[in-house]
Amino acid sequence: MSLWYYETFDDRIRFGLRVEHTLFAKQSDYQYVEVFKTVELGKTLAIDGIYMTSEGDEHYYHEMIVHPAMVTVPGARRVLIIGGGDGGTAREVLRHPSVEKVVMVEIDQVVVDACKAHMPELGSWDDPRLELIIGDAIEYVKQAHVEPFDVIVLDGSDPVGPAEGLFNVDFYKGVSRLLRDGGVFSLQSESPMIQRPVFLEVVQTLRTIFKTAQPYFGPVLLYGGAQWSWTFASNTVDPLAIDEAQLAHVEDGCKYYNRDIHRGAFALPNDLRRQLG
Amino acid sequence: MSLWYYETFDDRIRFGLRVEHTLFAKQSDYQYVEVFKTVELGKTLAIDGIYMTSEGDEHYYHEMIVHPAMVTVPGARRVLIIGGGDGGTAREVLRHPSVEKVVMVEIDQVVVDACKAHMPELGSWDDPRLELIIGDAIEYVKQAHVEPFDVIVLDGSDPVGPAEGLFNVDFYKGVSRLLRDGGVFSLQSESPMIQRPVFLEVVQTLRTIFKTAQPYFGPVLLYGGAQWSWTFASNTVDPLAIDEAQLAHVEDGCKYYNRDIHRGAFALPNDLRRQLG
Repeated sequence: MSLWYYETFDDRIRFGLRVEHTLFAKQSDYQYVEVFKTVELGKTLAIDGIYMTSEGDEHYYHEMIVHPAMVTVPGARRVLIIGGGDGGTAREVLRHPSVEKVVMVEIDQVVVDACKAHMPELGSWDDPRLELIIGDAIEYVKQAHVEPFDVIVLDGSDPVGPAEGLFNVDFYKGVSRLLRDGGVFSLQSESPMIQRPVFLEVVQTLRTIFKTAQPYFGPVLLYGGAQWSWTFASNTVDPLAIDEAQLAHVEDGCKYYNRDIHRGAFALPNDLRRQLG
Repeated sequence: MSLWYYETFDDRIRFGLRVEHTLFAKQSDYQYVEVFKTVELGKTLAIDGIYMTSEGDEHYYHEMIVHPAMVTVPGARRVLIIGGGDGGTAREVLRHPSVEKVVMVEIDQVVVDACKAHMPELGSWDDPRLELIIGDAIEYVKQAHVEPFDVIVLDGSDPVGPAEGLFNVDFYKGVSRLLRDGGVFSLQSESPMIQRPVFLEVVQTLRTIFKTAQPYFGPVLLYGGAQWSWTFASNTVDPLAIDEAQLAHVEDGCKYYNRDIHRGAFALPNDLRRQLG
């Protein structure tokens, strides 16, 4: 018998991986959380039937959501991560030696526990600079009274279910309030191939709040959409103005990301150039 | 009832599209050729169970296999296409006004007929500059006595089945014999994600024949591998030395490709940089 786990997009595209065995499955207060081992990508996390991350290709996603923002903010000290329960985004942020404090606001303790138990190599959970808050990021962003952040990373799941409130004007305004002048906000912004309307809406909405919002692109096999996008938003920072010292600390340790990938990722295809102006 | 067409890679990854109906299905002398309509990508060609091209995303593939070579050879007049039976590669080549002659050597008349009948917008079949030879490219490349070509494009299917002989030293030597000094050879070189050993072998083998062989990358949803690759091979031409006049003729008419995409596509991820040196 051969076991397959399929993610289906709108009953029109399906991406499947052959599964060796299940390691974890639990309904949390928010969602159905599963970890299983796939032949192609090793241990893999899925939430509510949607692939989230895997040992085999997590570095494409986590390096790309973190480093373009981090290398354009010289000496970034304080970082806020919204979501990111598997730990991979915090791990990449913490590789930057300038970082003194990472606050991570993740809604679901079950996701964190599952990843700590079954995919521990994704996280840097014991780093004393990391403060994990299990709670609602929407409330945090609205109400927190803290020193502003140099970089804010929104590592949320798709804009349905518990993550829905993370993709709208009110939430982005809250993010803007917590970001210092000269800071950068980066987020995953779906697949420009198979979720183009959502992708365009994210970028266009960000442009009503921030002076710059530029999407960038890379491959994430697990997401089945040929190309994934993230978006770099800021009031003052040019996404191509790489700080050499900031880059030098992390570039060699990356599996995917480097200076050329950074520049290349911001190249906008002709069709998107026409749609985004 | 919902119909799906699946391509499965080595019993570990599966990519499926929902099918509305079948338009064509025939066993040729070489392979099983199908055209069907999918919800996501419109009319779609598959050969021996492997997705080949679709109305919805063919421009990603065809622009990327053609233009990086064509814009680095000023005034390219003569172009050889090996394979390319759907017509899309020839169409993109023929958009360059400097082109006087395109020779296309495709082994399977059934593929050409199916695409002319069911996906005619892919081709520029009536262009008088196009000479279609139904025949074996391996023999052609070995034996043809013709004026050398400025650009040669290998648009073959995967290196199994009839296309197997198109991916080895002897074939590349034949290509090299037909390429003029200052010419460029470009080819599809599989997915660096899910077919990495084959991808590396193609690039490394090309480097034993040509002074330069540089892979470049882009998204092709239909191929299910998150990222596709092509390789640019030449003895004299720098892939980043774009000729402005050559680019100007085609850039505006492209859906995906442009100058920034060209440069960005050649960015080599850290892991591949280590593997390819």
